[in-house]
Amino acid sequence: MAHVRLITPITTSGFRSEEELSSIAGSGLRLSLTQIEQGPASIESAYETAFSEPATILRIIEAERDGVDAVVIDCMADPGLAGAREAVSIPVLGPSQTSMHLASMLGHSFSVLTVLPRLRAQFETLAAVYGLKGKLASVRAVDIPVLELEDDIGATQAKLVSVAEAAIHEDGAHAIVFGCTGLMGCAAAVRTGLLERGIDIPVIDPIPTTLRLAGALVDSGLAHSKLTSPTPPDKAMPGYAGAPSRFSSGP
Amino acid sequence: MAHVRLITPITTSGFRSEEELSSIAGSGLRLSLTQIEQGPASIESAYETAFSEPATILRIIEAERDGVDAVVIDCMADPGLAGAREAVSIPVLGPSQTSMHLASMLGHSFSVLTVLPRLRAQFETLAAVYGLKGKLASVRAVDIPVLELEDDIGATQAKLVSVAEAAIHEDGAHAIVFGCTGLMGCAAAVRTGLLERGIDIPVIDPIPTTLRLAGALVDSGLAHSKLTSPTPPDKAMPGYAGAPSRFSSGP
Amino acid sequence: MAHVRLITPITTSGFRSEEELSSIAGSGLRLSLTQIEQGPASIESAYETAFSEPATILRIIEAERDGVDAVVIDCMADPGLAGAREAVSIPVLGPSQTSMHLASMLGHSFSVLTVLPRLRAQFETLAAVYGLKGKLASVRAVDIPVLELEDDIGATQAKLVSVAEAAIHEDGAHAIVFGCTGLMGCAAAVRTGLLERGIDIPVIDPIPTTLRLAGALVDSGLAHSKLTSPTPPDKAMPGYAGAPSRFSSGP
Amino acid sequence: MAHVRLITPITTSGFRSEEELSSIAGSGLRLSLTQIEQGPASIESAYETAFSEPATILRIIEAERDGVDAVVIDCMADPGLAGAREAVSIPVLGPSQTSMHLASMLGHSFSVLTVLPRLRAQFETLAAVYGLKGKLASVRAVDIPVLELEDDIGATQAKLVSVAEAAIHEDGAHAIVFGCTGLMGCAAAVRTGLLERGIDIPVIDPIPTTLRLAGALVDSGLAHSKLTSPTPPDKAMPGYAGAPSRFSSGP
Amino acid sequence: MAHVRLITPITTSGFRSEEELSSIAGSGLRLSLTQIEQGPASIESAYETAFSEPATILRIIEAERDGVDAVVIDCMADPGLAGAREAVSIPVLGPSQTSMHLASMLGHSFSVLTVLPRLRAQFETLAAVYGLKGKLASVRAVDIPVLELEDDIGATQAKLVSVAEAAIHEDGAHAIVFGCTGLMGCAAAVRTGLLERGIDIPVIDPIPTTLRLAGALVDSGLAHSKLTSPTPPDKAMPGYAGAPSRFSSGP
Amino acid sequence: MAHVRLITPITTSGFRSEEELSSIAGSGLRLSLTQIEQGPASIESAYETAFSEPATILRIIEAERDGVDAVVIDCMADPGLAGAREAVSIPVLGPSQTSMHLASMLGHSFSVLTVLPRLRAQFETLAAVYGLKGKLASVRAVDIPVLELEDDIGATQAKLVSVAEAAIHEDGAHAIVFGCTGLMGCAAAVRTGLLERGIDIPVIDPIPTTLRLAGALVDSGLAHSKLTSPTPPDKAMPGYAGAPSRFSSGP
Repeated sequence: MAHVRLITPITTSGFRSEEELSSIAGSGLRLSLTQIEQGPASIESAYETAFSEPATILRIIEAERDGVDAVVIDCMADPGLAGAREAVSIPVLGPSQTSMHLASMLGHSFSVLTVLPRLRAQFETLAAVYGLKGKLASVRAVDIPVLELEDDIGATQAKLVSVAEAAIHEDGAHAIVFGCTGLMGCAAAVRTGLLERGIDIPVIDPIPTTLRLAGALVDSGLAHSKLTSPTPPDKAMPGYAGAPSRFSSGP
Repeated sequence: MAHVRLITPITTSGFRSEEELSSIAGSGLRLSLTQIEQGPASIESAYETAFSEPATILRIIEAERDGVDAVVIDCMADPGLAGAREAVSIPVLGPSQTSMHLASMLGHSFSVLTVLPRLRAQFETLAAVYGLKGKLASVRAVDIPVLELEDDIGATQAKLVSVAEAAIHEDGAHAIVFGCTGLMGCAAAVRTGLLERGIDIPVIDPIPTTLRLAGALVDSGLAHSKLTSPTPPDKAMPGYAGAPSRFSSGP
Repeated sequence: MAHVRLITPITTSGFRSEEELSSIAGSGLRLSLTQIEQGPASIESAYETAFSEPATILRIIEAERDGVDAVVIDCMADPGLAGAREAVSIPVLGPSQTSMHLASMLGHSFSVLTVLPRLRAQFETLAAVYGLKGKLASVRAVDIPVLELEDDIGATQAKLVSVAEAAIHEDGAHAIVFGCTGLMGCAAAVRTGLLERGIDIPVIDPIPTTLRLAGALVDSGLAHSKLTSPTPPDKAMPGYAGAPSRFSSGP
Repeated sequence: MAHVRLITPITTSGFRSEEELSSIAGSGLRLSLTQIEQGPASIESAYETAFSEPATILRIIEAERDGVDAVVIDCMADPGLAGAREAVSIPVLGPSQTSMHLASMLGHSFSVLTVLPRLRAQFETLAAVYGLKGKLASVRAVDIPVLELEDDIGATQAKLVSVAEAAIHEDGAHAIVFGCTGLMGCAAAVRTGLLERGIDIPVIDPIPTTLRLAGALVDSGLAHSKLTSPTPPDKAMPGYAGAPSRFSSGP
Repeated sequence: MAHVRLITPITTSGFRSEEELSSIAGSGLRLSLTQIEQGPASIESAYETAFSEPATILRIIEAERDGVDAVVIDCMADPGLAGAREAVSIPVLGPSQTSMHLASMLGHSFSVLTVLPRLRAQFETLAAVYGLKGKLASVRAVDIPVLELEDDIGATQAKLVSVAEAAIHEDGAHAIVFGCTGLMGCAAAVRTGLLERGIDIPVIDPIPTTLRLAGALVDSGLAHSKLTSPTPPDKAMPGYAGAPSRFSSGP
Repeated sequence: MAHVRLITPITTSGFRSEEELSSIAGSGLRLSLTQIEQGPASIESAYETAFSEPATILRIIEAERDGVDAVVIDCMADPGLAGAREAVSIPVLGPSQTSMHLASMLGHSFSVLTVLPRLRAQFETLAAVYGLKGKLASVRAVDIPVLELEDDIGATQAKLVSVAEAAIHEDGAHAIVFGCTGLMGCAAAVRTGLLERGIDIPVIDPIPTTLRLAGALVDSGLAHSKLTSPTPPDKAMPGYAGAPSRFSSGP
């Protein structure tokens, strides 16, 4: 049974709970959860992504030492993905990369639905890095602040449906990816809302899907390429007490 | 527990056995197997792909009627993928599309290792259709006829390792995808061979990996987009007695 | 004098007539016509395309045996193009591939005008396969069912003009390609309608243009590459009595 | 019967003769020939291309006034193509654009065989302008000065065959385009040489093929888009006495 | 102190004045100015671009002989850029190429604001040639004739601001490049107008910026590649008395 | 006079000296220098890049507070570029982005010459992010450890010349960019070495060139787009005492 750990790369406590994960775990999948203690309260910018990465990478190194089989990063900016893959051998998955590839497999094109308009360039850049720029139809934002998303969950879901419709009719989207892990749990309602409008397309909830894909990779014995992500050289890292002094194995 | 069916799109009996599948099934995954009776003995060309598709699509329609949860097509040409997705609502996965996307997630670039040099254009075209042309480093062939692949399995695996090395060193491949489902079962040996040469990269065995990914999609409630793959119109199909007379549901 | 055969890949009789071809034949071009008897009544989906291909390919093999100089497939999905090119040495042209390339030569960008909105993904995928995705401005549909296209030909042509205008003004199209061979014969009226609005651009009627290009290729001694389309291996094809038992020449 | 004029954009007399054209003319195609008197002796650089363009464009304007139906520019740099298309309404074809598109239709990829290595960047740039960069496998040069090409025509053709083989085996070319109109007439010998080596691919001789395609366009009533190539404004042109003082028609 | 010369590639006198340049020159930058006497009165088409190039190239050769350190061409069509770079060793910069690259460095995407809608295809083609097609959000035109731009400079600037806003909100532009050197001097007003609407993005005035970049290149000892732009062969150029008889140095 | 600050994003003292900068400063350019105290000793991996970014961004915020006009990051991984541009309004330039754009302006294609083969994927990814993937001919490494680069500077330069030659002849490079700021100062010798072999192309030394370009941007009043790099929200940043508590100005 694959053990996959979700690493929340922000310092706000209570953002993610074990309860949320319990419905995802199950047949063949054991889940655990941790978060960082050094870095941003939440991630809404490249600036905050940068400050999130060191502690996130250290949590992923810790997960490998704990004997975890795979790790998923709990943020659609995929913070620390490239650096962590160098530092460990177990699979490390970002929900943004994973969701974009699954959406590309299931549809001719996809749109990302996120919270803030300022994130459009970030998602277009990630799509370019992941080689999927040609599949990204658009990035659209709902006009609701993150902290108000759950104030009126019905209104949030209704807004998601109407923005998804705009992406479909105006931008040519054939699949939807949620661009904020804070929207976790809304996929079923959005899919139902679209079906009521006669639109039958996949609505990808990144975290549950990426956790399950991580399990499938573990079962298949697959991890990231060490040619793409070679082990870092051993080197001093002043100011980061938790950073490992060496990566190379040996007596 | 997800029930995934593998559809072998060729008429040669005995190509694939239930025994081969038993090691893949397990935690949360139930597998079944069928094949076509009208079409080519094997698929090594676009000509044969075309003659394989009608019967393959009909087998996939049958699978949905049988209550199967998802289908995987057992050939790296992904025959019938686009047509079958229109005809059914359950997920239909091609091993070529799935493996190329997974390789793109796990590495900066990938090469396809296949049996015949004549298949290079086919894989490059599939990569273009799937939106992954920028990730495909090369297509390389081992010089062993399909029917002789198992004559000396050690020699085949040694050849695969040396061709993989050439793809890595000369073409810049960071991951390997087997380009022939006849190579199923060789991934572990090839990965070991590369590790012995100091190369630690994913070697994707398409059928087992695609079956497991199909299970993860079923668990996530995801299927292909019906905007990309809309249900076909009801229409006469002279000469294909098994073709359904109608797709639309109704009383 | 080049002899080019038009192969209609649907089983509905009377869709295409010798009379329609007579105005295209002429200086240096002899035309003949045939159609399939096994497959869909018409082609409006990938599902139907798949069921059209075996019989279409066999008709193309027959054409080569009949001494025809070149073949044009009478459908904008280009059904059977890749498979047929492997099976024969005479030029085989698809109207979609040919029209998209000519439009790309004559204008900075082009739009495809078709009948059904569901075909957008198909044409975008074909453009990707043919290497012309960067030239395709849009795919737009007139809202008239195929069987009603000729009910009020004036209304159809007026609709085509207005949809062409939208493609030009909103999508930046600089040339128009008809995306349905059922629109054959409407190009002059649409071009006139656009000229009356001050827009002087090529409107490509795919079948007549592709037939003439086939003649020019025959005169130039050119055919498709057998590296791209190598001859299929000799192999059994259960369920397709008409399939050749061998492709290789010999005593 | 379409009247197509070949415009030789260099000032060296005797480069092209009516006799060369006689074998191309025939069924439905009437050919004429002219050349420029102001500009370079030959074209082997962007510098010379620039000095060739004004007189070439004026010759094309003259051709339209002479009642010619279409024009082909006799140089693989396609000098004056964009400017001339603005100035006239009859089709103007460049052999480079036309040959690259035909090669892309007939093969998965193509290589350009030219005389001088310095022309590689030029052909790659033209392929980008024409939207075909993804189809260009390589540009390769034979090491024979233009003026010595005909000294030992057998040696030239043998060299072309061996360079074509290198493009096929090392660069993945599936079709060949001659990158110098001075190689006109060598296609049959090169194709034969490749067939003797078991390679059956199209070898495109740009001028004859482009002349025939121009005829097919005239027969189809097609010309370039005036949205891409709008008529120039009427304007003074000091130093070019032959330039028209107005383009707009009027009483 | 770097000496950079601005070459105005049109024959209308008084288009550009020494006074305009005086505010750009200064710390480390000396500027001079010249224009052509053979060619178009202004450049608004590919036709006029072609007639501008010979004299422009000869002026650039003259500049190198005069001991100038670098040259900037004073037109957003970059006329003569490729040909002149072959003919000289000092840096030759086009404002279109330079501005598009700087805009790509400073923003996720950029739009070109020009005078005439007919120039859209030209700028999209230039972006393709310069390798920046993926960064170009749109080309938009103000509806004011060039000769009327300065009639009501306030109205022109207001129109530029509103068209820039449309490019930002509808096309996703993150930076603005002026597409006409006749707009020189308007950047500050347009940037201020956008700031008043809360939009803080770079507005690139191509000529001043390109002149300063030319100075930075001279200070860095950099010029264009002679592999991309090899010296032309010595050759007769009938009809262009000013063309050099030889490029190669020597006794 | 523009004041540009070079920020060295590693904790090893003495890597960069004021003396090195004195030859670059001069006409119109004032330079200053600082480095980080929290982070990696050097940067040779994505892992180290991640640990370098927080302190580098804080140094850039400090530079703006100090009244500096522009900042250049002293590492070819461009660490902190995206995050810092959000946090400040003064221009922030990365040498990798700047050099790749300049190389693309000066040549048809460019190669990056770096120290370690493991960095190939990093540079290809950066080129994709910067929109220049189509211009990157290759990434090649000299086989000399960073700390031994200066042991035998003549040998290092000779190796650079021979690797540059391989990039030119085998990969088609038309310009060279140094892929390690530790190679600063070697450009003149490499250019001379290539000229001795008859190859006249730009060899870009990223730091001096980027510092001069930063000066030109300051003189032009240009900075990065705040639509691409919007100001971060005010937010707590536990564990980073130096992070600003607010970005928004106000009383």
